[in-house]
Amino acid sequence: MTAKPEILKLTKVASSRLFHIESMELRFSNGVERCYERLRTGGNGAVMIVAINDRDEVLLVREYAAGLEEYVLTLPKGLIDPGEDAATAANRELQEEAGFGARQIEHVRQLTAAPNYMGHRLEVMLARDLFANKLEGDEPEPLELVTWPMNQLHELFELPEFSEGRAIAALCLVEHRLRSGR
Amino acid sequence: MTAKPEILKLTKVASSRLFHIESMELRFSNGVERCYERLRTGGNGAVMIVAINDRDEVLLVREYAAGLEEYVLTLPKGLIDPGEDAATAANRELQEEAGFGARQIEHVRQLTAAPNYMGHRLEVMLARDLFANKLEGDEPEPLELVTWPMNQLHELFELPEFSEGRAIAALCLVEHRLRSGR
Repeated sequence: MTAKPEILKLTKVASSRLFHIESMELRFSNGVERCYERLRTGGNGAVMIVAINDRDEVLLVREYAAGLEEYVLTLPKGLIDPGEDAATAANRELQEEAGFGARQIEHVRQLTAAPNYMGHRLEVMLARDLFANKLEGDEPEPLELVTWPMNQLHELFELPEFSEGRAIAALCLVEHRLRSGR
Repeated sequence: MTAKPEILKLTKVASSRLFHIESMELRFSNGVERCYERLRTGGNGAVMIVAINDRDEVLLVREYAAGLEEYVLTLPKGLIDPGEDAATAANRELQEEAGFGARQIEHVRQLTAAPNYMGHRLEVMLARDLFANKLEGDEPEPLELVTWPMNQLHELFELPEFSEGRAIAALCLVEHRLRSGR
């Protein structure tokens, strides 16, 4: 495998309350130099939750996505708070966003979003053995809860409002895991 | 469906060569006001290409991902240049990154990455009937080409270096489309 590029210089070029942009001067192993930009966000990563109820339906939420200026249908997700592990964060977010807790939570895999210019990492968590319990979160309005049969995922994937790549990936991974009997 | 929040104010708060950060003051339909931040990038969107050769293998590339500071395995992808449509951009990127053109290209679906704070849209394109042809791109070094059997996708999805949610989603969508005989 090729040796990683050498990082010649890393400079913070702009930042806001939530985002930090870095400029990155790189020298590739063939001698070519390039200046890239990337986003840095601090924090402990994030979780996305595939929660399946006893009717074999997955819990979806409809929420306002500021990046698109649209309501979208997606999986519950959120940041891991300081001191939390991924399973704790997943159980908290599920109760805040969907009004359900889970007695069984397992890690499926880590996903990235746009690794060329973002270091963000998201843990896909499978939640089962659900119970109704609502926790207050920081949502500006209650999220609409939608349940969807796990055996009709490809109909869901055809909906324009279910567009988030990581959510489609998470459901494919979980569907395969369950079908393999793990 | 809930009425969209009213955008009270949109302010550019920071920007760099590639990124523009906006602050967004919103009033939700229940009267709650919130200030969000989001990324704006201009441009015409991007394409991600699932190119399948006559041995029923998908073409992958290994490239340096500055956000992760790692080499990753992913699908060929890139921005749509001004004046290009998605199919033209896909055919160009495939020749630049993987050294193959395609006589048949079709649109599969649009994906988003992190719609809560990014408006980025990516078109998944299925490329078939391939022919060897290398175009010079803007890559700092040649990308390593890896071919992977389409009937072993879940083995690919277990590799830590194949982590991009949109790439896993794209392959799941294409695999389903081909299996359905479309």
